[in-house]
Amino acid sequence: MTYCLGLRLNGGIVALADTRTNAGVDNVSTFGKLRTWFGPATQTAPARAVAIMSSGNLSVTQEVMNLIDEEIAANGAGQTNGLTTLMTAPSMFRVAERVGSIMTDVQGRRAPTLGLNASASLLVAGQIGAEAPGMYLVYPEGNAIEATLDTPFLQIGEIKYGKPILDRLAHAQMSLDDGVKLAALSMAGTLRSNLSVGMPLDLAVLPAGSHQWRQRRVEIGDADFTQLADAWDVKLRTAFAETPGVSV
Amino acid sequence: MTYCLGLRLNGGIVALADTRTNAGVDNVSTFGKLRTWFGPATQTAPARAVAIMSSGNLSVTQEVMNLIDEEIAANGAGQTNGLTTLMTAPSMFRVAERVGSIMTDVQGRRAPTLGLNASASLLVAGQIGAEAPGMYLVYPEGNAIEATLDTPFLQIGEIKYGKPILDRLAHAQMSLDDGVKLAALSMAGTLRSNLSVGMPLDLAVLPAGSHQWRQRRVEIGDADFTQLADAWDVKLRTAFAETPGVSV
Repeated sequence: MTYCLGLRLNGGIVALADTRTNAGVDNVSTFGKLRTWFGPATQTAPARAVAIMSSGNLSVTQEVMNLIDEEIAANGAGQTNGLTTLMTAPSMFRVAERVGSIMTDVQGRRAPTLGLNASASLLVAGQIGAEAPGMYLVYPEGNAIEATLDTPFLQIGEIKYGKPILDRLAHAQMSLDDGVKLAALSMAGTLRSNLSVGMPLDLAVLPAGSHQWRQRRVEIGDADFTQLADAWDVKLRTAFAETPGVSV
Repeated sequence: MTYCLGLRLNGGIVALADTRTNAGVDNVSTFGKLRTWFGPATQTAPARAVAIMSSGNLSVTQEVMNLIDEEIAANGAGQTNGLTTLMTAPSMFRVAERVGSIMTDVQGRRAPTLGLNASASLLVAGQIGAEAPGMYLVYPEGNAIEATLDTPFLQIGEIKYGKPILDRLAHAQMSLDDGVKLAALSMAGTLRSNLSVGMPLDLAVLPAGSHQWRQRRVEIGDADFTQLADAWDVKLRTAFAETPGVSV
């Protein structure tokens, strides 16, 4: 299983992904599910920072990533005749569309042999030029939905455990630091309730207008993350004790 | 969809169920999913209080309830030749077994035509005589698992949204009042995240040794429940603000 989530805030993007993959509970591995790309402004394309998080069949998501990288390289070498790639697309909408198109191709090739096991989903987030930050959830069929002011977060994988706290607290006006804290709390609850979501985590933050991801891996025992989870546990217990009960 | 949960505490049982059923989002109804039974001590059977909560195919769970009632009535009239019913079983283990057996019969009759749509699960909880309170989750196949000191809660239906708070706070030593509060908070988060779980709620509490359910329906706008949900929302925001962040 997997849990990845993104927040599209007015101040930028927060992306957080676990790293656990499993083929049965007796075959568990660590694979990064968060990839980032940077691109300076060129004569034909504005500056950009893009991230993709992935859930689902690992061979499918890795194939999609390899195809993305391959066409970026081919385009850089002038071999693709002006194909829109992740590095040349004029908008996050077009990035999501291109990624969805690659996903459709891969699904089309793999579904006949893998069936439903070929399923995979992607979270595509970033900012291009002067555009506002954008975030899209690309479905296995290649179509995509976009995070909005009403619902500034998107999730893939094991989404339910960590959703109530997002439903309560997420809003587009919150600071990037608060966004990181909220994403970490959503992840902490999921880690506790589903063993197939596991540390370490990959965290990336894109301040609006910077076109630069700040990112780091959150290892098991990470001081910040441990402190956050422990403090939340204590504060939840206090909140519980102070909340009035329901009579029967 | 449905969300029902039970807490098997040292002090007794807490049972909470929503009442929403739906066949598609355009066909939504209110059906009680919590049934309770009482039985005074007789010459052959100790006193008892039993509750069953149900999720899954409504025709299947209603058929199970009708068969339970039918055999209780037949047994009371001396027509079942000493069959173990919910009202004569010597232990909650035997109640769960009998209910599971009825479930197996119904599944066997309905699965050929309904297929996977015949699926249903039951939470069976209560106390018989001097036995400790007991709670079982009866699966569609008729087998059952029992709540224990390690895991004093069981859930059926839309279980994931409301599980993290149970994982954090539920323990067998908590008071019945705290159990009601915790169940209500788990339900409140689920109501918020899944529209197919809906008010009103049915709440039942069985203090250990009483053999009497205290129960009531929690209607939309219920003062206690509204106050609880509102207070929790405020306290969560405060806890969030006071929790240290994670650096990037």
